[in-house]
Amino acid sequence: MTGTVYLVGAGPGAPDLLTLRAARVLGQADIVFHDALVHEETLALAARAQKVLVGKRCGLYSTAQRFINKRLVDAARSYKVVVRLKGGDPMLFGRAHEELACLLANRIPFEIVPGVTAALAASADLGLSLTRRGIARSVVFATPRAAEDAAPSGWASAVAAADTAVLYMAVRDSEQVMQELLRRGLSPRKPVAIVENASSRERKLWAGTLAELPELAARCGSGPALVVIGEVLAAAREGLLPGLAEPATPQAARRR
Amino acid sequence: MTGTVYLVGAGPGAPDLLTLRAARVLGQADIVFHDALVHEETLALAARAQKVLVGKRCGLYSTAQRFINKRLVDAARSYKVVVRLKGGDPMLFGRAHEELACLLANRIPFEIVPGVTAALAASADLGLSLTRRGIARSVVFATPRAAEDAAPSGWASAVAAADTAVLYMAVRDSEQVMQELLRRGLSPRKPVAIVENASSRERKLWAGTLAELPELAARCGSGPALVVIGEVLAAAREGLLPGLAEPATPQAARRR
Repeated sequence: MTGTVYLVGAGPGAPDLLTLRAARVLGQADIVFHDALVHEETLALAARAQKVLVGKRCGLYSTAQRFINKRLVDAARSYKVVVRLKGGDPMLFGRAHEELACLLANRIPFEIVPGVTAALAASADLGLSLTRRGIARSVVFATPRAAEDAAPSGWASAVAAADTAVLYMAVRDSEQVMQELLRRGLSPRKPVAIVENASSRERKLWAGTLAELPELAARCGSGPALVVIGEVLAAAREGLLPGLAEPATPQAARRR
Repeated sequence: MTGTVYLVGAGPGAPDLLTLRAARVLGQADIVFHDALVHEETLALAARAQKVLVGKRCGLYSTAQRFINKRLVDAARSYKVVVRLKGGDPMLFGRAHEELACLLANRIPFEIVPGVTAALAASADLGLSLTRRGIARSVVFATPRAAEDAAPSGWASAVAAADTAVLYMAVRDSEQVMQELLRRGLSPRKPVAIVENASSRERKLWAGTLAELPELAARCGSGPALVVIGEVLAAAREGLLPGLAEPATPQAARRR
């Protein structure tokens, strides 16, 4: 027998930002391989499934990924409904390619259930549209994390060319990120914001300028965080952000 | 009394790609202002709400948008739960900024419910991750539609700088889009795909090269369509795409 592997987006964090389809598939699942950041309420929807944590938040890439690939193939030979549950959307920074290539090579049927990616939850938390008439007609999602990736670093030029940018996995390297973007010609006064734990009750928002990015990043906790960059954030820089939990910048705080 | 206005993402088309939160908010809605492309099953979730179609798929921008803004404000003065339901995610190409600015100016409380944007549904339909280790670390979402927008056209340089691109509202202008991207230095052999009616039962996929974009676009019907561009599509160009409904290109069809 061969089951089907569902690559399912768990959404950005809040369990009710899961899709109806993802909830249904989880309810039918025999086994669920999930990332570390998936909410326990989401996992609870897979009431009759065996749950296997395969998160690898901090590296050890190759072995771990090859092991996950193999476990998905093995599971599809024993179970009817196999779910690979990933934070956000599976097709954005989710390493879906490796898993899909392995499933295809082993002739395992698969389906993708898209999800709400963290950048869109961050935009909702900020109360600011990522696009805006006359200001922003392009939005880039990128990651500067190159530790495990031999690809030439084009992320910074992609960020510089787009009107709005959302950086995944960028907070820990905020100093290098800022330096690289300044080198690409971005203004040190370009508005930036950091959203930690987007969509969850523990979310936190900070806003300031590109030059202040390392200082803002230093206030972050250990939750997943996104860096948003672009003129659409001008309201955030002024501290006028409806959702802003803390003073935007020392300047904005003084102005209040 | 002042109600709350919920800007809610309806997702990419399939009604079960709505989020659980969006479904709950629709169930509580007193009145729903919705776009033309929202699925009737999604609207049916707003069982007790008055439904108002405010779609404006083909232009007449300013009057229509100002009228929508005013109706949202008026509704919040008469109803407790006002929903503005937009296809995809409200913060991406949804003109949310104008509506939010108007709500803020009128001190109407609002909440954003993010959704699955069409690009991610298209990626799921194609069975191809938009990012890929060693190939793609940046993904840009952009629109070349400039008819109503005085902003300088930076979309093409943003597309050229990113590893993967998804163009919204680009199919009708496919000839100009191709010319502009060739001028920016993209190869005529760059892999492209078009996804029409992403996530719906009527979805169609075509794959080829940038030089073939106008020819692929000519096969599209009148449904909303996305153009995907990037090396992650190499499998699609070879006709190896699991979800590909029609021959990718004349060459690929011959090769079969």
